[in-house]
Amino acid sequence: MNPDPQLHDLFTLLRFSSISTDPAHQPQMQACAAWVAEKMSCLGFSSTIHPTPGHPIVLARKKPSPGKKTVLIYGHYDVQPVDPLHLWTHPPFEPHLENGIITARGATDNKGQFLAHILGVQETLDSGTELPVNLIFLIEGEEEIGSPHLPAFLEQHREELACDVIVISDTGMIAPGLPTFTYGLRGIAALELFLTGPDKDLHSGIYGGAVANPITVLARLLGTLHDEQGRVRIPGFYSQVRELQSWEREAWKKLPLGDSDLLQLTGSPALAGEDGYSALERCYARPTAELNGISGGYQGEGTKTVLPSRASAKLTFRLVPDQDPDIILEQACQHLREHCPRTVHLEIKTGHSGKPYLVDPHNPYGQAAQRALARAFDHAEPALIREGGSIPIVATFKEVLGVDTLLLGLALPDCRAHSPNENFPVANFKAGIRLNQELLRELA
Amino acid sequence: MNPDPQLHDLFTLLRFSSISTDPAHQPQMQACAAWVAEKMSCLGFSSTIHPTPGHPIVLARKKPSPGKKTVLIYGHYDVQPVDPLHLWTHPPFEPHLENGIITARGATDNKGQFLAHILGVQETLDSGTELPVNLIFLIEGEEEIGSPHLPAFLEQHREELACDVIVISDTGMIAPGLPTFTYGLRGIAALELFLTGPDKDLHSGIYGGAVANPITVLARLLGTLHDEQGRVRIPGFYSQVRELQSWEREAWKKLPLGDSDLLQLTGSPALAGEDGYSALERCYARPTAELNGISGGYQGEGTKTVLPSRASAKLTFRLVPDQDPDIILEQACQHLREHCPRTVHLEIKTGHSGKPYLVDPHNPYGQAAQRALARAFDHAEPALIREGGSIPIVATFKEVLGVDTLLLGLALPDCRAHSPNENFPVANFKAGIRLNQELLRELA
Repeated sequence: MNPDPQLHDLFTLLRFSSISTDPAHQPQMQACAAWVAEKMSCLGFSSTIHPTPGHPIVLARKKPSPGKKTVLIYGHYDVQPVDPLHLWTHPPFEPHLENGIITARGATDNKGQFLAHILGVQETLDSGTELPVNLIFLIEGEEEIGSPHLPAFLEQHREELACDVIVISDTGMIAPGLPTFTYGLRGIAALELFLTGPDKDLHSGIYGGAVANPITVLARLLGTLHDEQGRVRIPGFYSQVRELQSWEREAWKKLPLGDSDLLQLTGSPALAGEDGYSALERCYARPTAELNGISGGYQGEGTKTVLPSRASAKLTFRLVPDQDPDIILEQACQHLREHCPRTVHLEIKTGHSGKPYLVDPHNPYGQAAQRALARAFDHAEPALIREGGSIPIVATFKEVLGVDTLLLGLALPDCRAHSPNENFPVANFKAGIRLNQELLRELA
Repeated sequence: MNPDPQLHDLFTLLRFSSISTDPAHQPQMQACAAWVAEKMSCLGFSSTIHPTPGHPIVLARKKPSPGKKTVLIYGHYDVQPVDPLHLWTHPPFEPHLENGIITARGATDNKGQFLAHILGVQETLDSGTELPVNLIFLIEGEEEIGSPHLPAFLEQHREELACDVIVISDTGMIAPGLPTFTYGLRGIAALELFLTGPDKDLHSGIYGGAVANPITVLARLLGTLHDEQGRVRIPGFYSQVRELQSWEREAWKKLPLGDSDLLQLTGSPALAGEDGYSALERCYARPTAELNGISGGYQGEGTKTVLPSRASAKLTFRLVPDQDPDIILEQACQHLREHCPRTVHLEIKTGHSGKPYLVDPHNPYGQAAQRALARAFDHAEPALIREGGSIPIVATFKEVLGVDTLLLGLALPDCRAHSPNENFPVANFKAGIRLNQELLRELA
């Protein structure tokens, strides 16, 4: 057992291989949800595990006191897959602590961050102080697959979940020690496309030249998605994009995250993307069409002279205000169908989606959050940013519960979320525990 | 044990999983070579297993009689990989006989065909007849990976291998019962390309838009290889291509293998390829750039929002007279390097290659072969064709040993060579056994 009981809790939570996208990990998902519910019960919360058609949702609340504001803290206990596994320096579900850095899948995204809030509450209660607000914890297990069952859950529990503001720590900090308030998020829309040419794999010598090769057709089809700069060529794609405001561009220029930092963080040979925008602006406020995977034919060692029957690709769009995921998916499908020749069959499966989000950082809750951030981080002035990632549920919270969300992230730029060797500094974990206490006081 | 001893031999040979491209199958390669050598010894041949830096070569010969012509019969005991394994109706290395059809990896390509020659010799000897020619069997284990060590072996054993003509049964028949003489083959040249963007997989939300995605770049790069018709756009690619002669086009028009047959055989939604050529002409006498495999990013179930570090593709060119594989590979590498942006690193590995082959079907050996084919197949008139596949060693035989090769194939159009459910009819196996006997008499 780790001598620090807070780290002991975190390591226990990280050992669950709660990969929501992979059905093989279902038992670990159940076990992880049960652990979170049990932890909340120990703090005197009334704690329930709600089954869904997918993975369960953990809901925990204190008996409400009239007159106090109600705050809902959201987090997710599911994590991304771990492959390519061989690139991990330590097994992804055996947390490793070295030089103050915890390495494990989920360390940053999102177990370390939501647990910091739970442990902040524990510290408050352990000190004999009453919580300054009514508190609800909503910890789901399907964030990494687009929260398919959370909207219905919110609708069903609308009254029970009534609150004044929502808090999520699932975003990033600009730099170590620089507290960061995220007032915008990109949305997402996913699809997968499958091309079938011949009805079986063919000998590429015997038949090559007489029929279309699905890999070749796929490459050409995917090539129609972008221009040379990486600008998306789907008709109508940019028509709803809200341009950056000048105060944002000015503020972001001052952030310690310029083009050279992005170049170093990504380890790419060069930056790329639309002319007229800095790398940060491209990530925060410009939409993309990103190929997440491609597959076809023989991928083993050596050569196999096959003309394959099938080829496929996985594609996600990142969207910005005021793009609508449904419209984008429709435009994308139409574009792909129009550009696909009749020499192959095209099948498209649309996947999860979520709207982009933007809120005024200068409203009263925003100001309270910024004060709490400054106190939790040695009185440093918080940075105001948008973020390139997506938390689709934020837009749903606004729609269903009618409240804004405060995004107070603790992830560092090199946290490797979704990548091998995901990590989270102990310092950020502890700052998160402090932040919870400052924040609930400020919001009260 | 199969009651038919010839089928028993074939099934035994097919049970060796002799996949030359996969190092895991090395022991099966050794065992398969040993079985072939032992079989030849039993027929009274002096039989040797020659090790190479790769897989061994089996050489077997009868003590030569002066004054007789010398015939060399070539075959290969190695086979293609079996994936996708789940599409096989029976395990690929457990031969299955149903309705006169043998299903197994290697049944057609090439175990069934070279064994027919061995068993033809066995029948001749068993009948108490002397062989009409001096005979050499050369059975190698690296045909499916481009015969990398056979040219050096031929050079080293040039005198021992001196012969008048070479016979190979590793090509196809136009239709069941229609004996087929192949007077031309396409050549081959292989390469693999790897693109690296970021030095690790990135979160496609956090960084997407600021750096190039290697899958997107790969798709665009591969898209430069062809025009809309499938014509190769590499500069200089067609400059050495010999145009079809009119007698060939006339002869091929009469073959029972028109566009509609090709469409049915491939199971494609439509035929494709260069304008001005029939499907058969495209396969027999036009060059291609065929993508055999593509890989990158997340390929598992569900979504993973990753901007991958790497993407790769496997590419083989099929070449026709008088294209030179070395020049084509050089042109291809130059084309790919010129079209690859600097936002990714490009690495190219060139693979095996072999020259195209063309011989006059009307020379004396060609005429002898056509007579033997007619006798083995109920006096049907043999078809004269080229073939789209590659047997690079045929060009090497001509260069090193100075002799022509007779290509007398027994594979049917729907044999599924290189694909799941590769098969070979017992009737063709038996015809091959007859053919060997007719052929050696005619060649004498």
